[in-house]
Amino acid sequence: MNILIIGGGGVVGQKLAHALAAKGTLRGQPIDRLTLADINDPTPVTAPFEVTTARCDIASAASVAEVITQDTDVIYLLAAIVSAHAEEDFDAGMSINLFGTYNVFERCRTLETNPVVVFSSSIAIYGGEVPDPLGDHSYPNPQTSYGGQKAIGEILLNDYSRKGYIDGRGFRLPTISVRPGKPNRAASSFMSSILREPLNGQEAVCPVDPEFLHYYLSPRKCVENLIKGAELDAADLGQNRVMQMPGRTWSIAQLIKAMTAMTGPEAAKLIRWDPQPEIRRIVSGWKWDIHADKAERLGLSADSSFEDNIRYYLEDDKPSA
Amino acid sequence: MNILIIGGGGVVGQKLAHALAAKGTLRGQPIDRLTLADINDPTPVTAPFEVTTARCDIASAASVAEVITQDTDVIYLLAAIVSAHAEEDFDAGMSINLFGTYNVFERCRTLETNPVVVFSSSIAIYGGEVPDPLGDHSYPNPQTSYGGQKAIGEILLNDYSRKGYIDGRGFRLPTISVRPGKPNRAASSFMSSILREPLNGQEAVCPVDPEFLHYYLSPRKCVENLIKGAELDAADLGQNRVMQMPGRTWSIAQLIKAMTAMTGPEAAKLIRWDPQPEIRRIVSGWKWDIHADKAERLGLSADSSFEDNIRYYLEDDKPSA
Repeated sequence: MNILIIGGGGVVGQKLAHALAAKGTLRGQPIDRLTLADINDPTPVTAPFEVTTARCDIASAASVAEVITQDTDVIYLLAAIVSAHAEEDFDAGMSINLFGTYNVFERCRTLETNPVVVFSSSIAIYGGEVPDPLGDHSYPNPQTSYGGQKAIGEILLNDYSRKGYIDGRGFRLPTISVRPGKPNRAASSFMSSILREPLNGQEAVCPVDPEFLHYYLSPRKCVENLIKGAELDAADLGQNRVMQMPGRTWSIAQLIKAMTAMTGPEAAKLIRWDPQPEIRRIVSGWKWDIHADKAERLGLSADSSFEDNIRYYLEDDKPSA
Repeated sequence: MNILIIGGGGVVGQKLAHALAAKGTLRGQPIDRLTLADINDPTPVTAPFEVTTARCDIASAASVAEVITQDTDVIYLLAAIVSAHAEEDFDAGMSINLFGTYNVFERCRTLETNPVVVFSSSIAIYGGEVPDPLGDHSYPNPQTSYGGQKAIGEILLNDYSRKGYIDGRGFRLPTISVRPGKPNRAASSFMSSILREPLNGQEAVCPVDPEFLHYYLSPRKCVENLIKGAELDAADLGQNRVMQMPGRTWSIAQLIKAMTAMTGPEAAKLIRWDPQPEIRRIVSGWKWDIHADKAERLGLSADSSFEDNIRYYLEDDKPSA
């Protein structure tokens, strides 16, 4: 079993690599090799199998051909230009999120090896005038280019799978929180930083009201679901290889209440409330009444309370003092 | 008012050109010039304004740049590799239906002229495991590459419109019947030929059962709707620039009954019933419980009976003896 993670240097890619190292198998077979590929050299992980790292720019078909080879069994395609970044730089979003995805699928078609491809889509595909509730059968009417490019990736994944070029599985990731590390250029970045920074004793800015609702999943659960996603039986996937990954809807106030319940009242005092119009404009186009019926039926799951999300951060990610 | 029809040599493109010639105006302004562009030289039409023809291969960005210029006000993008053809030749479908569409929208973005772009999508975007009824808010789960490529075009149209690069309007065309001319490589081709050939005194083959249901529109109504589509006020379009074009659902038996009602019993005797597995496989993945709420609200309309479809063919298209 030879696994490639494209976006292997990112938060989810690194956590997935560690989880695969701990598990040692995928799809019932021992893992022989794991390749972490990213635009910059990813941090290697320690594992009971060979781990290699590679630079890869998926906007280049030649670069993709270097990392996807005849013996690649499973590909995780997690690399993306995130929402606010793709909104500012239309060309960057198109070249990575659309043409990069195409390059990955096209490479698989050329090889004729029908690898398992796990594709991270996003709840950013939802939006606009499509009525709630949203889920597996809702029209993608995103109000960001990132969401549009992910929606296109979904359709490509389905068609390449239907044609037998890949064995694709697409999952619309909820917003991941608490996301470790530094803020990124996702408009949703604050949905982790308002918890992470205070939990680390630092100040953070919240650009929306406490009533703001959104759909969340912890990184730990996300990785569990990505592993289950690769292991699903193709016969159970039906005619739509893309599904909503389970998450849960919480308000900002509920996030903060969970943090307080887990660590006491001091952390919340480090949040500064400062409306930011551009972030508000993007996130107000996002939807939260989201359902993941198909994925739940197939055994994927959400966190049971946001206290769990806080606990996972403290256990897995909080930098030691 | 300077109009470009890409796919101007096709059945709908030619009829649209004639209708524009008869109307003389679009969006309340006199038409100054009409350019018919297609992969082969289109037949010119006689009009009270300048009509030019051009060869254009939308798979080539340079070719697109020759026909879309600073003074192009309205673009009809009707060119496509049709369903059975795109199913046989995956590369051809991708290069015209996906990259060709991208090239057209990208050219508009570069020009910064925000032209009106009327894009023909298709009911082929529907399919798979999405529940009936289908319409403006249904997830595209097509079971053909053609349908997938059209669904991608819809998402691009919406995003380029949202960003202000084009003033896009997308319409999912029902199957056009009675389509004049020769059979084409659409899997739906028989849905016209079983009427057209008998009406012309020739034999035709029907590959499906009389009970087979499908969603239809006459070419005359389609062109009326495409003209209305360009004339809709952008403010009325909302956040989703793509909608179902109204059609009506009929069985093959109802089509034939309408032909008999209009022209007598002889025509139906020219239909030979011959199951064709590949055509059946494709068309059985298509949906027929389709609704066009948004387009109807905006004033677009379907035929009132299939007798009308037959009458329009006899009036507009039947070759003289």
